[in-house]
Amino acid sequence: MTPPVTLDLWIERQQQALGTFLAQQLPAPAQSPQDLHQAMRYATLGGGKRLRALLTLACAELLDMPREPSLRAAGSLELIHAYSLIHDDLPCMDNDALRRGQPTCHIRFGEATALLAGDALQSLAFQWLTDSCAPGHEARHLAQVRLLAIASGSRGMAGGQALDLASHRTSLSLDELEAMHLKKTGALIRAAVLLGTLCGTTDIAPSIIHDLTHFANRLGLLYQIVDDILDVTSDSATLGKTAGKDDAHNKATYVTLLGLGAARDKAAEVLDETLVALARVPGNTEYLRGLTQRISARHH
Amino acid sequence: MTPPVTLDLWIERQQQALGTFLAQQLPAPAQSPQDLHQAMRYATLGGGKRLRALLTLACAELLDMPREPSLRAAGSLELIHAYSLIHDDLPCMDNDALRRGQPTCHIRFGEATALLAGDALQSLAFQWLTDSCAPGHEARHLAQVRLLAIASGSRGMAGGQALDLASHRTSLSLDELEAMHLKKTGALIRAAVLLGTLCGTTDIAPSIIHDLTHFANRLGLLYQIVDDILDVTSDSATLGKTAGKDDAHNKATYVTLLGLGAARDKAAEVLDETLVALARVPGNTEYLRGLTQRISARHH
Repeated sequence: MTPPVTLDLWIERQQQALGTFLAQQLPAPAQSPQDLHQAMRYATLGGGKRLRALLTLACAELLDMPREPSLRAAGSLELIHAYSLIHDDLPCMDNDALRRGQPTCHIRFGEATALLAGDALQSLAFQWLTDSCAPGHEARHLAQVRLLAIASGSRGMAGGQALDLASHRTSLSLDELEAMHLKKTGALIRAAVLLGTLCGTTDIAPSIIHDLTHFANRLGLLYQIVDDILDVTSDSATLGKTAGKDDAHNKATYVTLLGLGAARDKAAEVLDETLVALARVPGNTEYLRGLTQRISARHH
Repeated sequence: MTPPVTLDLWIERQQQALGTFLAQQLPAPAQSPQDLHQAMRYATLGGGKRLRALLTLACAELLDMPREPSLRAAGSLELIHAYSLIHDDLPCMDNDALRRGQPTCHIRFGEATALLAGDALQSLAFQWLTDSCAPGHEARHLAQVRLLAIASGSRGMAGGQALDLASHRTSLSLDELEAMHLKKTGALIRAAVLLGTLCGTTDIAPSIIHDLTHFANRLGLLYQIVDDILDVTSDSATLGKTAGKDDAHNKATYVTLLGLGAARDKAAEVLDETLVALARVPGNTEYLRGLTQRISARHH
């Protein structure tokens, strides 16, 4: 057992460990096809908060899971997240030139290579979940693959994106907006937390899985409401991506549906619900609580 | 044991079984998000020869594998193949409006939905490989996931696409062309054959895996050489896709590198090698041999 450290130090250490893991495990930039591998690394290693991976690691630490499988699961999630950002930024989607303050992948490498880099990152995420599987641990690895596949697919993240596209042609109710976000952002955040329960040999009690799932669902919603608020209250330099684009794209958001003040009230309410849900989870949930508060108070 | 049937009848039965399996297992068209699910079904159910799936089923039958896992593995391969065709046809790649004689997915559903449909089909392929896993069979399912992930990724199919893109800017040697095709087309054809060895509880002897791998490698190359020849000798109506586009795109192909006559000689030579490799595999390889000859003699 390492002694507990402050949230800031913990986050810094995890981000460093993740950065090292990703840099070592991604195909080397000199390996053929070089353009493709460089694009995959560019999109994955270019910083970012690594929120999803941090949630996996915090959950795994709470449940005393071993380190290497936890890092591997967290890294796979980051690959899925990175692929989704590449494809979201493409001209046929959000057509965005800026991500984390840098040119987006297709601006840097061209559209075709960016498309393929996203595709190959998705494959690699599933490959990683099959790596380093000790004999007898196959069921756990297979459960990770299943969790991530469902969270990424048409009834998860990609489905949420499709609902988002469809929403430009119609007006959403608040319930429909929440349903969309539960898929678009929520599915991967839920998978992040639940992957943390699948990183060791311990079977986690169904009641804990249930409470963590409820926590993760509220957290995903919280993340998205804050995202919607930041899109109108922040600027591109702070966000590291284009601000104000929801309004420009005529998107349904919590702000366009509720107005800014009510969206802020909603965020505060969902933060409360998230923390109440977390309080039901036994053990030292300090880092998960801290990450929740950071998500709520973030500026980018 | 069902009595052996002619190749034609066997192919027809398998295509029918695959069509039924895919139609039942894909998300229903009325299920939300409807556009996305309709696009996924459109791209997957719109016919095609189902060559990769047939290879899996023929290999599984040769090795006496049970039927349901064989169909499931074959179906997963078809999802990966369908996703790759959607993304290949996009404007930033081949920009093709015609596939199997029908409008391509992005022409029918728009670019953004087509992009997401490809993404979600990839996720679904991995999800399917985790479905219906009986206790104790997890290692086999995990091996399937690993095989398909590696075959699809940056050192397989997506990598081959990237090498193809890069080849427009430079001239390839024959060895480089073969290396590109071993990834671009070969990786999934190899995976198709090898998935057939992973559909039951039987452990297949390493020597058989080795011989099947060698067979599959030559078969993938054969497929591509014939594809290159058909691009110049056939017309769009027969191909069901745009003919002559390799030349229009200034692509390196066996025909542009060798000339049509020598490309035909090369195809005959690789057909011989493929059949010699298959002859080393024990058991009744009749359907695999028949499929090989069909690939060699196909007109589309």
